[in-house]
Amino acid sequence: MRNKDKLRLIPLGGLGEIGKNMNVFEYKDEIIILDCGLKFPDDEMFGIDIVLPDFNYVIENKDKVKGIIITHGHEDHIGGLVYLLKKINVPIYATKFTMGLIDRKLKEHGLLTKVERIIVKPKERIDIGEFNVEFIRVNHSIADAVGFCIKCPAATVVHTGDFKIDYNPIGGEVIDLQRFAKIGTQGVDLLMSDSTNVEGPGFTASESTVGPSLFNLFRGAKGRIIVTTFASNVHRLQQAIDAAVEYNRKVIICGRSMENVSEVAMDLGYMNVPPNTLVKLKDIKNYKDKEIVIITTGSQGEPMAALGRMALGEHRQLTIKKEDLVIISASAVPGNEKTVSEVINKLVALGSEVVYGRYAEIHVSGHARQEELKLMITLVRPKNFMPIHGESRMLMQHVELAQSIGMSKDKTYLVDNGTILEIDKRGIVIAGKTQAEPILVDGLGVGDIGNIVLNDRKRLSEDGLFIVVCTMHKGKAISGPDIISRGFVYVRESETLINNARDEVKKALLSCEEKGIVDWNSIKNVVRESLFKYLYDQTKRKPMILPILMEV
Amino acid sequence: MRNKDKLRLIPLGGLGEIGKNMNVFEYKDEIIILDCGLKFPDDEMFGIDIVLPDFNYVIENKDKVKGIIITHGHEDHIGGLVYLLKKINVPIYATKFTMGLIDRKLKEHGLLTKVERIIVKPKERIDIGEFNVEFIRVNHSIADAVGFCIKCPAATVVHTGDFKIDYNPIGGEVIDLQRFAKIGTQGVDLLMSDSTNVEGPGFTASESTVGPSLFNLFRGAKGRIIVTTFASNVHRLQQAIDAAVEYNRKVIICGRSMENVSEVAMDLGYMNVPPNTLVKLKDIKNYKDKEIVIITTGSQGEPMAALGRMALGEHRQLTIKKEDLVIISASAVPGNEKTVSEVINKLVALGSEVVYGRYAEIHVSGHARQEELKLMITLVRPKNFMPIHGESRMLMQHVELAQSIGMSKDKTYLVDNGTILEIDKRGIVIAGKTQAEPILVDGLGVGDIGNIVLNDRKRLSEDGLFIVVCTMHKGKAISGPDIISRGFVYVRESETLINNARDEVKKALLSCEEKGIVDWNSIKNVVRESLFKYLYDQTKRKPMILPILMEV
Repeated sequence: MRNKDKLRLIPLGGLGEIGKNMNVFEYKDEIIILDCGLKFPDDEMFGIDIVLPDFNYVIENKDKVKGIIITHGHEDHIGGLVYLLKKINVPIYATKFTMGLIDRKLKEHGLLTKVERIIVKPKERIDIGEFNVEFIRVNHSIADAVGFCIKCPAATVVHTGDFKIDYNPIGGEVIDLQRFAKIGTQGVDLLMSDSTNVEGPGFTASESTVGPSLFNLFRGAKGRIIVTTFASNVHRLQQAIDAAVEYNRKVIICGRSMENVSEVAMDLGYMNVPPNTLVKLKDIKNYKDKEIVIITTGSQGEPMAALGRMALGEHRQLTIKKEDLVIISASAVPGNEKTVSEVINKLVALGSEVVYGRYAEIHVSGHARQEELKLMITLVRPKNFMPIHGESRMLMQHVELAQSIGMSKDKTYLVDNGTILEIDKRGIVIAGKTQAEPILVDGLGVGDIGNIVLNDRKRLSEDGLFIVVCTMHKGKAISGPDIISRGFVYVRESETLINNARDEVKKALLSCEEKGIVDWNSIKNVVRESLFKYLYDQTKRKPMILPILMEV
Repeated sequence: MRNKDKLRLIPLGGLGEIGKNMNVFEYKDEIIILDCGLKFPDDEMFGIDIVLPDFNYVIENKDKVKGIIITHGHEDHIGGLVYLLKKINVPIYATKFTMGLIDRKLKEHGLLTKVERIIVKPKERIDIGEFNVEFIRVNHSIADAVGFCIKCPAATVVHTGDFKIDYNPIGGEVIDLQRFAKIGTQGVDLLMSDSTNVEGPGFTASESTVGPSLFNLFRGAKGRIIVTTFASNVHRLQQAIDAAVEYNRKVIICGRSMENVSEVAMDLGYMNVPPNTLVKLKDIKNYKDKEIVIITTGSQGEPMAALGRMALGEHRQLTIKKEDLVIISASAVPGNEKTVSEVINKLVALGSEVVYGRYAEIHVSGHARQEELKLMITLVRPKNFMPIHGESRMLMQHVELAQSIGMSKDKTYLVDNGTILEIDKRGIVIAGKTQAEPILVDGLGVGDIGNIVLNDRKRLSEDGLFIVVCTMHKGKAISGPDIISRGFVYVRESETLINNARDEVKKALLSCEEKGIVDWNSIKNVVRESLFKYLYDQTKRKPMILPILMEV
C-alpha cells in the first residue's frame, strides 16, 4: 500500500540514457510533472523518428496531474510535451524563453489556445496544489534555464535541470549559487543533479570564451563566413552576430530551426541584433562575399539541414566557394561523429576552409564537470543524492564523485527509469516500479512498433528480400513459381542464380506432392528451407524468404 | 601515351578515407603493390561485410606485377590480400611478425602453400625487378611495422606506412630516424606520409606510458581484472602481461583474434610470457578471482566479441562480477563510439568497475601528431609531398602543415584514389585517372552489390514492406488481393488498416478495368500509387510496395 504522507518520485526518463527526461512528483492526490523530453533513436531502431517516455503512469493518474514544470527548452526536455498534452490537458509552467519555444510547438500541433501556459521568473515561487515550486536560475547552453526547489509537506527536493556554472555568461545572468546555498542551509531531502559531463575533470569553460575565438577567425576571413551551431544556443548566435557587427558583415540566418529560435529570441529580447544587421538569403547577391556571415543549421552533420545540403552541393541558394570559411561551433553529439566528419570532409573537398574540433576553442559544453558538480552537492548539502541525466556509467561516476566528498553510500540512489521512490524527512524507500520502456514513434504511430517489426526491418536491411509466388489449384502448383527479390542481389547480373532458385522451388514443391504434404504452412516451410539453403550456399547471404501461395 | 621512363604511382585506396590502403608503383613493364587493405563498411552500407580497393588496374596489368610489399599487419593494410591473391599470384614481402599474421590468413583461405612469401628485416634492401625497396623500421601500434624507400631509375619515393615516433617503445626498437635522415640527404622525389593523427597538436605519447597506469590499476584491484585492447597490439598485451606477473596473476587470453595474434607473437618471439603465466579459460575455476587477468577482444564494443558477450550476459564461460575491474585500453575507432559506450554502460550496470576514456591514461595512439609529422618531413626533405592515410580534411591539414614548414604549395599533392601520378627527377605530373571505387563484399559476393541493392535495403530498413498479390485471368483479378507486410506495422494490431488497404487495391483494380487499362505494368502502378497514398495518409510511413500479379 502506498503511504500517501510521503512524496513519491518516479523518474520516467533520463536515467541510464541521454534524453527523454521526465519525472513525476506525487503527494497525496496530486501530481506535478517535471520536463517531458524526447530522445533520438539508436542506429538499431530502424525507421523510428523519435523516442518518448512511457506516459502510462501519468495517464492512469491523469486526474491527479496539476501541472508540468519545465527546466529549459531543449528537445530532450520539451520534445515530448505535445504528445503528452494530447492525452492530458494541464497547465505548463516555464520561464519566458522556454515558453516561447514551447509555444511554437503547441501552435504547430493546434494546441496553443487549448493549453494554459504560465510564465514564471527565476527566483519566483509558485504553488501548484500542495506543491511549492521555486524556479532557480542556472547556466546552460540555452537561455533562461532553471533548476527547481520542490517542496511539499513531506519533503524538499532540489532538481538542477541541465546546468553548468558560468561566472561570465553571455547575457550576464549567473547561476543563482547563493539561492542553492540558502536552500541547502534550510535542509534538502534529495538533490537530483545533471550527470552529462561527469566524466570531465575540472570546470567547463565559460560561454564567453568562445567569442574571442570567433572574433579572431572573423578578423582573418577573406570570403563569406558560415557558422553553424545548435539552433537553440542563442548566446552562441549572439556572439557570432557580435563578431559580424564588429567586422562589418551582414548576417543571414539559414535553416528552419535556426530561423524559428532566433525569431523567438529576438521577439522576447534574448538576442540583441542591431538594425540593418540581418538580411534575407534571397538578397545575398546584393553583398560582397566578405560582407556576409551565414549562421546555419547542420552542426550535427544532418544531411537534410542547410549546411549538410551545402556540403552535398544540393542547397538551392548557396554553393560553397573556395574562399568560404566554415566554423563548426559545436561538438558532435555521441553517435553523430561520423555524419559530422563526413560533412567536414565534403566541405574541405569543395575547397572551403573548415574550423572544427576541440583544438579550435570554438565550442564549450553546457554541462557541469566534476568540480562544478562537487560544488553543487556542497552548496545544497542534501540528505540524499540521486544522479540524473546520464547513461549508466555517468550516473555511477556521479555517485562515486558524491561519495568522494563525503556522501555516504547508502544515501545515494542509482536507480532505473520507472523506479518509485518514497521520500520523507526520515529518508527514502524504494517502493516499487512502474513501466518506463521507451515508446517508439514512427510517422503517426506512437508505440505501435515493437521488436517484431524492428527485427524484420533489421533483417531486410542486411540481406534484403526474396519472394516466391505460386498459384495453386487443388494442392498443385499451376503457375509460377515467380520470383521477386529486392535488396538481395542485382537481378540483371544474377539470372542463373534466380533460375536455379526457381528450380529449387519446383523441386521442393514436387517433393511435397510426392510426400503428400498438403498443408500450406508445411509447404511454405519446405520451400523456405530449401531456398534458404540454396541461397546461403551460393551467396553466404540470408535474405528474408517469403513464399506466397495463392489458391485459384 | 604513357611515358615509360617515369615512375607511375597510383594510390588505389587510403586517400579521402581511413582504410583499404593500397598503392601501385609502376616502372617500365613492372609493377609492385604496396599494401592491400580492407575497410569496414559505413552505416549506410546495409548488410555489407567489408569494403575492398578496386583491383581492376592491377588485374588488367597482372603480368607486370612482380610483388607486394607490406608495411604492417593491420587489417587496413593486409585485409584485402587474400582477395587479391585469388586473382593474381605474386610474392609477398614483409617483416617477420607481419608475415606471421598474413600466413594465418593465407592458411584460412587455402593459399599458404600457393603463394611465395619472403621475410625481410628492417634495414634490408631487396630488388624486385627494376625496383629497389628498403625496409625502414617505424613505430606503430603493432610490432614490426616499417616504412619504405622505393627506388627505381626514374625516382625515389619514401612511404612512411602508419607511424609514430616512440623514443621509448616496448621491445626497444625505435623508428629509424637516422635512416630517414640519411635517405633525405640523398634526395627524395616524393614523401608519402601518414595523416591519421594530423589533427592532434604536439606529440603522441609513448607506448611505454601505458604500463605505469596499468600497474597502478592492477595494484588496487581486489577481484578479477579484465583488459581489452586491439588484438594486434602485442606491445599492449605485453604490458598487461608484465603487470599480471608483477601482481601474481595468471593470464587468460580470450577471444579468437586475441588468441590468434598472441599465438603468432609468442611463436615468433614478439611477446615474452614467463612459464606458468598463461592458463586456459576452462581452468579458471582453479584460481581465486584476485589471481586472474583476462585479456580479451571487444575493445570496439563489438556485440559478438568476448567482452561484448560478457556485457550482454551471453558469454558461455564468463559472467561479470561486482568485484571485476574492466580496463578498456583502447579508443573507439570513429563510428564505434556508441557501441563502445553501450558496452561500458552494460558492464557498469552489472556492477563491475570500468576504467576507460581519455582521462584514464590507459591508451595511446599509434599515429604521429603534428610535431612528429613535421619532423618526418624535415628529415626526409622531399622535393614533393603527398599526404596519405586520411579523410579529406586530414589530408588537407597535412598539406597545410607541410606548407607551414616551407613546402611550397605546388609541390604538395592532394589527390584522390585512382589518380595516376608520373614521377621523375624533374617533378610530378598528374597523368590521368583509373577507376578506384569502393568494392563492396557481402557474403561470397565481391562487387556485385551496387546502389540499387543498397537503396532497396535502406528503404526496407526504414518502413518495411507491403506486398499485394492478385491472380489474374484474362485481365481480371480472380483471387486476392492478398496482403503480406513485414517491418511496416504490427499486423495483429492493424487489422483495420490492412482490410482498408485491401479495399483500396480492389478499388484501384476496378478503376483499371473501367478505364480499360490492361497493361500489367500500368495496373501495378495504379495499385502502387493508390496504396502509397492510402498508407501514407494513415501512417505517415512509406513502405516499399510490391504489387504482384499472377496469370492463371
